[in-house]
Amino acid sequence: MSFAFEVLHRDAGSAARLGRMTIRGIEVPTPAFMPVGTRGVVKTLSSQEIKDFGYKIILSNAYHLYLRPGHKLVEQLGGLHRFMNWDGLILTDSGGFQVFSLARLRKLTDEGVLFQSHIDGSSHLFTPELCIEVQEALGSDIIMCLDDVRGYPATREEALEALLRTTRWAALCLGAKKRVDPALFGIVQGAMYPDLRRLSAESLADLNLDGYAVGGLSVGEPRELMVEMFEVTLPLIFEAVPRYVMGVGKPQDIIDGVLRGADLFDCVLPTRNARNGTLYTSHGSVNIRNSRYRDDPRPIDPQCQCLLCSSYSRAYLRHLFQEREIFGLRLATLHNLSFYYHMMENIRIAITQNRLHSLARDFSVQMEETDD
Amino acid sequence: MSFAFEVLHRDAGSAARLGRMTIRGIEVPTPAFMPVGTRGVVKTLSSQEIKDFGYKIILSNAYHLYLRPGHKLVEQLGGLHRFMNWDGLILTDSGGFQVFSLARLRKLTDEGVLFQSHIDGSSHLFTPELCIEVQEALGSDIIMCLDDVRGYPATREEALEALLRTTRWAALCLGAKKRVDPALFGIVQGAMYPDLRRLSAESLADLNLDGYAVGGLSVGEPRELMVEMFEVTLPLIFEAVPRYVMGVGKPQDIIDGVLRGADLFDCVLPTRNARNGTLYTSHGSVNIRNSRYRDDPRPIDPQCQCLLCSSYSRAYLRHLFQEREIFGLRLATLHNLSFYYHMMENIRIAITQNRLHSLARDFSVQMEETDD
Ligand SMILES: [Zn+2]
Ligand SMILES: [Zn+2]
Repeated sequence: MSFAFEVLHRDAGSAARLGRMTIRGIEVPTPAFMPVGTRGVVKTLSSQEIKDFGYKIILSNAYHLYLRPGHKLVEQLGGLHRFMNWDGLILTDSGGFQVFSLARLRKLTDEGVLFQSHIDGSSHLFTPELCIEVQEALGSDIIMCLDDVRGYPATREEALEALLRTTRWAALCLGAKKRVDPALFGIVQGAMYPDLRRLSAESLADLNLDGYAVGGLSVGEPRELMVEMFEVTLPLIFEAVPRYVMGVGKPQDIIDGVLRGADLFDCVLPTRNARNGTLYTSHGSVNIRNSRYRDDPRPIDPQCQCLLCSSYSRAYLRHLFQEREIFGLRLATLHNLSFYYHMMENIRIAITQNRLHSLARDFSVQMEETDD
Repeated sequence: MSFAFEVLHRDAGSAARLGRMTIRGIEVPTPAFMPVGTRGVVKTLSSQEIKDFGYKIILSNAYHLYLRPGHKLVEQLGGLHRFMNWDGLILTDSGGFQVFSLARLRKLTDEGVLFQSHIDGSSHLFTPELCIEVQEALGSDIIMCLDDVRGYPATREEALEALLRTTRWAALCLGAKKRVDPALFGIVQGAMYPDLRRLSAESLADLNLDGYAVGGLSVGEPRELMVEMFEVTLPLIFEAVPRYVMGVGKPQDIIDGVLRGADLFDCVLPTRNARNGTLYTSHGSVNIRNSRYRDDPRPIDPQCQCLLCSSYSRAYLRHLFQEREIFGLRLATLHNLSFYYHMMENIRIAITQNRLHSLARDFSVQMEETDD
């Protein structure tokens, strides 16, 4: 077992912590953001470009790769790392959330979840055992347990049923795990009920997993409720393991998670927004489709060192978006992932210097400035 | 005037010649292929990637950039080189062919061509004078004269009218040229009539332009007729200037052009075919959508050094195409432009060694092997 996590420093003014997660000799400084490469590619970019930013770990997806091209095919081709030419770490999401959000005719039983593929309507039974088999075949470095995710709002009864099933499935996942190397993370559920979050965290704790995630957020709840669930749930997870907030989020959400003790994040926002023309900058967000950028010779963000900001004007990027040129999507994605990387770096530095609250305040003012 | 062209060696067995075209101190070894960056971007790629292959000159398009974002805007932003971050050379097509192939309600007079934009239906009068103004504003290194292009088949009368107008317009273009630095190339027309090709070449020769193109090909004529027009037209152009075959072509077409004395080529095929999943290789062409590549662990072309062939399997590229991942289009484009670059390099070496005919034969056998 080559997994390790150390807390190196605690912020004096918050629950934030600076840490280091080590897998296969690769060190990930935490808090860390994981770019999303759902189908074995971070959309528009090469693995080398992701590596060049400094990212050490990305997220990929058991559900999508199981359906296409198939986990057995990826295994036969040498695993996901080789398939996508990525020598960093890969955390794979179990598919619980995707079955909830994408699949049709979902039927939950204690055995697993029966669903129809969103691609071709074919029927599949996803069990905890299959979920582990898929992630091991992919060669994932961090395997997520299969969880039962419910929408917002969920009744107390639904939430209780889902969290109990999630815990039973986590035990089955642990039992099904054959490979020694990958880490296994559990997922705390309980919807928006603080006492159910506690029940979930405590029952999962007995399994002594390598890390724990806060799941079931970003499902349509108000932002305040999401932050309240950070507040409630994160302290329930052992100090000694990484705490991962799944599917979160906007820059402000990430800082709010870090302030409450979260170590890992993933989100499609920086990459998806890039493809919609929304760019994060040190002076707020920019929608490059806005006609005000038509003749703007300035870089998107003079403080950014990415290919876009070092070599091209806003006017050029707007031109590429106007013309639906694919290269524009790529430049915007590069920029947003550069922004997120440096944001996490600044967060880590601020923790070291015990001034995360002050960074959060500055950041909150900054990010409110938009061009809309 | 910083334009120069030298013939360095003539192939012993054909009309092929090895040359060097120099503009602004940048040397282009010929025969050369120019990647197409119609809208100020070679689709999916950065200028740096084009440069990294070794390409010294690309083609861009006066018609498209005039319509959007506008040549004056590009000029105000420092010209096309700066706009697209390309420090190599740029040849701009005049728009004659695009007005012919894209614009609506085209009306030709001796003054110019009145047309409706294919984007928004707006009316424009493109004159020889405006054509030069646009290309000078873009900062083009090689400006093409406005030409009158007709479809295939064209009657003798149409072809004669078009070539005479093309010559008159070329004289007006030369008169309208204000900048000293850019080179000005004329375009030989005459459709598929050898005597009209001669008339066109001879009447344009009086203008003593920096180079001459064979225009009006790849408009739907049979391949044999196109090669016959190479045969007829290329020897009519001065030995001392570059001869450019516009919009050509397939690998075999390029070799056929070189064998008859052509120096420059441009074509959308390598980039457009890449986006359709067709890849050129040393063992024939491959359509990566073909299900036979589903589990193929081999590189597209083991002889190729591009990012695709050095880092990814056929199975991965097929997966990207199946999932419509933009990164697949980019990898395929990189590969095809790498293939074209090395093909031109091999052609230049073969000329030096007086064995172009033998290369052409080998190549013809090679390229016939497809996976279809
Ligand atoms: Zn940037
Ligand atoms: Zn290649």
